[in-house]
Amino acid sequence: MNASNVRALGAEFLGSALLATVVIGSGIAASRLSPDDVGLQLFENAFATALGLGVLILVFQTVSGAHFNPVVTIVDALLHRKPWSLSSSYIPVQIAGCIGGAMLANLMFDLPAATWSTTDRASWPTVLAEVVATAGLILVIFALVRTGRGHLAAPAVGAYIGAAYFFTSSTSFANPAITIGRMFSDTFAGIAPTSALPFIGAQVVGAAIGLALIVGLFPAERSSS
Amino acid sequence: MNASNVRALGAEFLGSALLATVVIGSGIAASRLSPDDVGLQLFENAFATALGLGVLILVFQTVSGAHFNPVVTIVDALLHRKPWSLSSSYIPVQIAGCIGGAMLANLMFDLPAATWSTTDRASWPTVLAEVVATAGLILVIFALVRTGRGHLAAPAVGAYIGAAYFFTSSTSFANPAITIGRMFSDTFAGIAPTSALPFIGAQVVGAAIGLALIVGLFPAERSSS
Amino acid sequence: MNASNVRALGAEFLGSALLATVVIGSGIAASRLSPDDVGLQLFENAFATALGLGVLILVFQTVSGAHFNPVVTIVDALLHRKPWSLSSSYIPVQIAGCIGGAMLANLMFDLPAATWSTTDRASWPTVLAEVVATAGLILVIFALVRTGRGHLAAPAVGAYIGAAYFFTSSTSFANPAITIGRMFSDTFAGIAPTSALPFIGAQVVGAAIGLALIVGLFPAERSSS
Amino acid sequence: MNASNVRALGAEFLGSALLATVVIGSGIAASRLSPDDVGLQLFENAFATALGLGVLILVFQTVSGAHFNPVVTIVDALLHRKPWSLSSSYIPVQIAGCIGGAMLANLMFDLPAATWSTTDRASWPTVLAEVVATAGLILVIFALVRTGRGHLAAPAVGAYIGAAYFFTSSTSFANPAITIGRMFSDTFAGIAPTSALPFIGAQVVGAAIGLALIVGLFPAERSSS
Repeated sequence: MNASNVRALGAEFLGSALLATVVIGSGIAASRLSPDDVGLQLFENAFATALGLGVLILVFQTVSGAHFNPVVTIVDALLHRKPWSLSSSYIPVQIAGCIGGAMLANLMFDLPAATWSTTDRASWPTVLAEVVATAGLILVIFALVRTGRGHLAAPAVGAYIGAAYFFTSSTSFANPAITIGRMFSDTFAGIAPTSALPFIGAQVVGAAIGLALIVGLFPAERSSS
Repeated sequence: MNASNVRALGAEFLGSALLATVVIGSGIAASRLSPDDVGLQLFENAFATALGLGVLILVFQTVSGAHFNPVVTIVDALLHRKPWSLSSSYIPVQIAGCIGGAMLANLMFDLPAATWSTTDRASWPTVLAEVVATAGLILVIFALVRTGRGHLAAPAVGAYIGAAYFFTSSTSFANPAITIGRMFSDTFAGIAPTSALPFIGAQVVGAAIGLALIVGLFPAERSSS
Repeated sequence: MNASNVRALGAEFLGSALLATVVIGSGIAASRLSPDDVGLQLFENAFATALGLGVLILVFQTVSGAHFNPVVTIVDALLHRKPWSLSSSYIPVQIAGCIGGAMLANLMFDLPAATWSTTDRASWPTVLAEVVATAGLILVIFALVRTGRGHLAAPAVGAYIGAAYFFTSSTSFANPAITIGRMFSDTFAGIAPTSALPFIGAQVVGAAIGLALIVGLFPAERSSS
Repeated sequence: MNASNVRALGAEFLGSALLATVVIGSGIAASRLSPDDVGLQLFENAFATALGLGVLILVFQTVSGAHFNPVVTIVDALLHRKPWSLSSSYIPVQIAGCIGGAMLANLMFDLPAATWSTTDRASWPTVLAEVVATAGLILVIFALVRTGRGHLAAPAVGAYIGAAYFFTSSTSFANPAITIGRMFSDTFAGIAPTSALPFIGAQVVGAAIGLALIVGLFPAERSSS
C-alpha cells in the first residue's frame, strides 16, 4: 500500500469519525439546550449536520474522495471509478471511524464513552424512508460526478442531508457506517442495535435504486473535476 | 422520441416527485415535531425546501433543465429556448410526478397514500401573493438564464422559495404542478381542491407578469451556461 | 436617457420594492406565526431577508448594479464608478420602490396599503448600531468590488445583513430608502417616522466611515467582475 | 514597515474586532429576545456567527489573510507561508481587536463598555471540546490552502464554526484572541477569566494536533489561490 493510499484511509477514518461527532454531538447539545420542542432539536441537529458534513467533504475530497459511507464506496467501485482493492479497505475504516467519533462525542458531553442506544426506529414507514433517503443521496453524488461537477458535492450533499433530516420520517441516516456508529450513543441521534439491521438493509436497497437511476439518467460520463 | 428526450421526461418526473416529497414530507415532520409554534413549523419547512429544491435543480439541470413547474416550461418555450413539442410533454409528467411525490411523502409518514386536503387557502390577499411569488420566480430563473448565469439557478431558486415561504401570505406555491400534488395530502403543506384553481390562475397571471419583466429588463440574450 | 439607463432605473425600482416586500412581508408572517418568541420572529425575518436580498442582488446586478440603497449609490459615485447624473436619479427611484414594496407587503397580508408605523427605535445605542451596520455594509460591498470579486456581492451582502439583524441592537436597517419604506407599515419591521431621521443620519455617518475604511484598506482598484 | 503591512495589521484589527462584535452582539440579542430556550439562543448566535465570520474572511482575506486568530497565524508561519516578523505582530493586534469589538458590542446593547464575564466554562469535557474544535479549524483552513482552494475558506470556516457551536460541548471558541475578548462581556457569549486560561491551553494543543494532521494528510503543497 503506497503513501497516497494510506493517506486516503486516514482521511476516511478521520472524516467518518468527525461526521459521527458532528451528528451525535449536535444532537446531544440540541436535546439538552432545547428540551421543550423536538422539532427545534432536529432543526439545530440538521443545521449543524448540513454545515459540518459539507465542510468535511470539502476538506477530505482531494485525499480520499470523502465517502465516509460504505454504500457510496460500493457504488463508486461499481461505476468503475476506483480499484476494488482500495475500495474494500475503505469500509472497515469508515465503520471504525464512526464508532470512534460517537465515542468522542459522548466524552465531549461528559457521558460514558459508549452506551448502547435504546431508541427503536425501525418500522415499515421509516424503512421506506431510508430507501428513499439513500437512493436520493446516491443520485445527488453521482449525478454531479458524472457531469463533471464533483467539486459541488460538498455543498450539495450537506444541503441534501439537511433537508432529508426533515423530509424523511427516519431523519435520513442513509449510511451503514453512521448507523453502526449511532448505536454507541444512547442520546438524541442514537439507534437501537435491533433497528440498525433493517435500516442498513433499506440503505442497501436504496443504493441499488440510486445506482439504477444514475445509469439510466446519466449514461455518458464526462470528465470529472 | 429519442433517448435524450426520454431521459429529460424521466428527470422531470423524478425531480417533480422528489420536490413534492420534500415540501410535503418536511411539512408533516415539522407539524408533528414542533406542535406549539406554526412559525417554527414553517421555518423548518422552508429550510428543508430551500436546500432540497436547490439540490434537485443541481441534479437534474443537465438532463431536463430542471423545471418541475409548468409555468417555467411555458415561459421557457415562449422565450424560444426549447421546442414546443418537447415542452408540452413536460407538463403532464410534472403533474404526475408531484402527485406521486405527495403519495410517497404520505406513505413515509405512515399516512394513507392519498387524502384530499381540507386546507382552504384562497383569499384575495393570498391570490395576490401567488401572483407576486410566481412573477418573482420567473424573474429569478430567466434573469440568470438570459445573462449566462444559468448555473446559479440551483442556489438562487432554492433561496428564493425559502424566502418566499415567509414574505408572501400564501407561503409561495408558485407552481401549478406542486399545487395539484399538494391537494393529495391532508397535512401541513396541503391545499383544498377548491383553493387550487384560484391559486393556479394567480400563478399563470404571475408568470405572464414575470415574462413581461424579463423581456423589458433583459432584452439581449447572452450565451447561456 | 438611453434604453440601458431606463432599464437600470426600472431594476432599481423593482429591486428596492421587492426588498421592502421581503423585509416587511416576512416580518408580518413571522410575528403572526410565532407570537410567543420575539427572537424566533427575528430569526425567521433574518432567514428570509438574507436569502431574498442575496437573490435580488443576483437578479438585478447586471442591469443596475443592484444598489437598492442611496448610501451605496453615493459611495459608488464618489469612488468614480458611475456618472453622477445617473447615480442621482437612482435615489428617488429607490425610495419610491421601497414605499411601493411596503404597500405590496401590507396588501398581501390583508392590511391597509399604508399605515404609519408607531415603533420607536431611536436611542443612542441603536443609533451607534446603525453607524456600525452601515459602515460594515459599505465595507463588504466595496471590498469585493475593488478586488475584482463583485460577483460575490450577492451571497456576501445577504449573509452580512442576515448576521447584522442579530449582532446590532437596531436590527440593521443600514439603508435610508428601506428606512423610509418601513415607516409605511405598522408591523414587525416598521419604524416610527420620528425614529427614521436619526437612523438615516447614522447611516450617512456610517457610510462615510465605511468609505474611509475602503480608501485606506483597498487603495488599488483591480479589474471588477 | 511598508504600507501593505500596515494595511494587513489594520485588517487584522478591524476583522478581529468585528468578529468579536458579531459573536458577542448576536449572543446578547439572542438571549434577550429568546429568553425561554437556550438552544434557540445558541441557534441564533450560530446563524449570525456563521454568516458574519464568512463575510469577514471574504472582506479581509486579500489584505491580511483574514486570520483573526493567533493559532492560525502561528500555524501559518510554521508552514512557512508568511515571514515571522510580520506574523508575530499580528497576534497583539488580534487580541486588541477582539477586546475592542467586545466593547463595541456592549455599547451597542446599552451595557457598560467592559464588565468581566462570570460564566465558568472550563471542565474536562469542555477542554477536550476546545482541543477538537481547534484541531478541526486548523484542518479546514490549511487543507483548503494546501490544495489551492484558499478562496473557499470564507464559506467553509463560517460553516465549520456554525456547526461547531453545536457539535462541541464548549460552543467552540477555538481562538485565543476571541477567548480573551469574550472575557470583557458578562453576557451570553462571555467567559470568566479563570476559564480562559484552560481554554487557551486546549486551543494550543488542538492547533498542534491540527498541524500534525495537515502535515500528514496534505504533504504536497500545490499553488494556492
